[in-house]
Amino acid sequence: MFSNRIKDVKASEIREILKLTARDDIISFAGGLPAPELFPVKEMMEVSRFVLEKMGREALQYSPTEGYDPLRDHIARRMKLSGVNVPGDAILITSGSQQGLDFSGKIFLNRGDVVLCESPSYLGAINAFRAYECQFREIETDDKGMVMEDLERALRETENVKMIYVIPDFQNPSGRTWSLERRKGLLELANKYNKPIIEDNPYGDLIFEGERIPSVKSLDTKGLVIFLGTFSKTFCPGLRIGWVCASPEILNKYIMVKQSADLQCNSMSQREISVFLDKYDLDKHIERIKVVYKKRRDLMMESLEKYFPQEVSWTYPSGGLFTWVIVPDHIDTKRLLEKSLKTIKVAYVPGASFFPNGGVNNTMRVNFSTMADDKIVEGIKRLGDLLKKEISL
Amino acid sequence: MFSNRIKDVKASEIREILKLTARDDIISFAGGLPAPELFPVKEMMEVSRFVLEKMGREALQYSPTEGYDPLRDHIARRMKLSGVNVPGDAILITSGSQQGLDFSGKIFLNRGDVVLCESPSYLGAINAFRAYECQFREIETDDKGMVMEDLERALRETENVKMIYVIPDFQNPSGRTWSLERRKGLLELANKYNKPIIEDNPYGDLIFEGERIPSVKSLDTKGLVIFLGTFSKTFCPGLRIGWVCASPEILNKYIMVKQSADLQCNSMSQREISVFLDKYDLDKHIERIKVVYKKRRDLMMESLEKYFPQEVSWTYPSGGLFTWVIVPDHIDTKRLLEKSLKTIKVAYVPGASFFPNGGVNNTMRVNFSTMADDKIVEGIKRLGDLLKKEISL
Repeated sequence: MFSNRIKDVKASEIREILKLTARDDIISFAGGLPAPELFPVKEMMEVSRFVLEKMGREALQYSPTEGYDPLRDHIARRMKLSGVNVPGDAILITSGSQQGLDFSGKIFLNRGDVVLCESPSYLGAINAFRAYECQFREIETDDKGMVMEDLERALRETENVKMIYVIPDFQNPSGRTWSLERRKGLLELANKYNKPIIEDNPYGDLIFEGERIPSVKSLDTKGLVIFLGTFSKTFCPGLRIGWVCASPEILNKYIMVKQSADLQCNSMSQREISVFLDKYDLDKHIERIKVVYKKRRDLMMESLEKYFPQEVSWTYPSGGLFTWVIVPDHIDTKRLLEKSLKTIKVAYVPGASFFPNGGVNNTMRVNFSTMADDKIVEGIKRLGDLLKKEISL
Repeated sequence: MFSNRIKDVKASEIREILKLTARDDIISFAGGLPAPELFPVKEMMEVSRFVLEKMGREALQYSPTEGYDPLRDHIARRMKLSGVNVPGDAILITSGSQQGLDFSGKIFLNRGDVVLCESPSYLGAINAFRAYECQFREIETDDKGMVMEDLERALRETENVKMIYVIPDFQNPSGRTWSLERRKGLLELANKYNKPIIEDNPYGDLIFEGERIPSVKSLDTKGLVIFLGTFSKTFCPGLRIGWVCASPEILNKYIMVKQSADLQCNSMSQREISVFLDKYDLDKHIERIKVVYKKRRDLMMESLEKYFPQEVSWTYPSGGLFTWVIVPDHIDTKRLLEKSLKTIKVAYVPGASFFPNGGVNNTMRVNFSTMADDKIVEGIKRLGDLLKKEISL
């Protein structure tokens, strides 16, 4: 009765874990949730009242598929932070960047086509692409991004490569950031082989230290880079407002797909965010978020150092929400999670599902943005103890 | 570079016409827009303030894919109006019913599979399904719905039929409503051939006269009917809140697809509608809408009678937003629209795009809900005069 593709669509392991960990007695490093105590609730009340008072009818009516023009203009201006100079009509508003991922699959992938992605890569993207019956070739990564030699090998050897999917800033799940050199290398290869690049950038604004590295899109010379952005991590995720920035021919495909997928994004939320950007300083708000997240990152790093056994390693994220933990080969983090939830009430996301072709079972994604300070210390302490026991088994 | 399916996705003709007709000097019968002067803007201000004050953080945070439970329960209760008895967890919240259509294609259709649909059928559904590279077999219709003999013939003769798509209440574009007998006949055939039915029901609540006929879903015995509903026509479309109601196994596929498509619907809008349903009487609100729409329908029918030439016929809709006009064979309504926009500044939607396999060029969809009374009379008068001239050519 069902389509073939539906066999390949799995329930997101993260969402399933999140359901288990919604209970108050669990210390959860599983989510990628922004800290709700930082949401600008008061400002939203102001903004929401303003929108309904000044343009209530438009806010509740159908509106153009492309999005609310003043919001598109705001986003275009903000794209300059990533080094990209575009007008508002280079932007399509989407339901979070997840919808941009789904549309990318729909637009580029035939059955059997190959996506090149980082190893590991974002689970939500893997699931979105999989619904279009594609294959994945995982490209080796190190602390500077994809290993270019492996990427070139893949481009040379693999038939039906249709796109290269990357998260260059504070990657989900690894927390790592690509160097400028690698970004240039990626673009050179994409140009040479004429392959579109999907640059997924939900965390770029959440930089804690150092200089912001220009986005891959900012280096784009042939219009091959499709940039996916979102307000989910810098403003709030509940309104489901993200965007696609791409060259006209490509963006036009996204617009047509948006039309048949759900007509348009929420007219009211688009106006609320746009008015928020008129009235308030989003960058100031982001600064406030970063102070908290950086502190939690520091606390997480200290706690890992202090409580985790020496056989375990992890990445040092200079922004974003996650660190990536590698435990000894013989420990299966999926099985460990069951034990962890039951005995020490600590949750994380087992790393296995971030490898589309499987085979790596000794990693975990650990979020540091959601839990309060004392819970970070306590949770890592408990997890460290559990790991020590496992290692000595 | 692009996928094969993208060649089949067309920009919606309606949306393109809507862009042309957004100007104030055009009398437009093209949109399917609810009348914005009836939106409960004041109540929304109240509701929006309440949601942010009482549950601001949750309203701005990620939330479950399935939807906000109190809203799902509200919808389940409202499904009783369509004769359906289900619990809240039979409901998935979607971004309008358009997203339900897209997901239906994704879940059921492989390349080359066949969708059985009414002739004519809803353009937005045709485009959504087309993105999954399907074929259409149009089933003959009359004033009582699909002609059962033709449906059975199609089921018997056609290979790879994967679903039957119908809009039984105040159909878009024809304005016609299926009889109870035909609904029973449809279900019998679906059961016999074991085919899922997509019952698209955006207009059911907008009934002007007579008894409400039970939905196809209410007659479902084998869990084969997937019901798509929406608040777009009864509350407001800008919030993009619709739903899917289906049996557990099938609904689970929709939930997984929702997860990979855009994670979830807007957390805040879901709460706003839910609180609106707590605090206000939606049925009373719908009564107010119906009084206005019925009056406009009557005015439209009178004006058609008075000003349209006798060679032209149209349907009498007992609810919904549209009437369907059939002009003499030799008039191509697409070409006529250009003339109409230029000379008399009246817009409608040419009927051709509602026939997925093409070939019918002498029909038009005429909306009666959006324009104020005087514009309905004036627009139909002008269009009648133009048609008289065309016919005498």
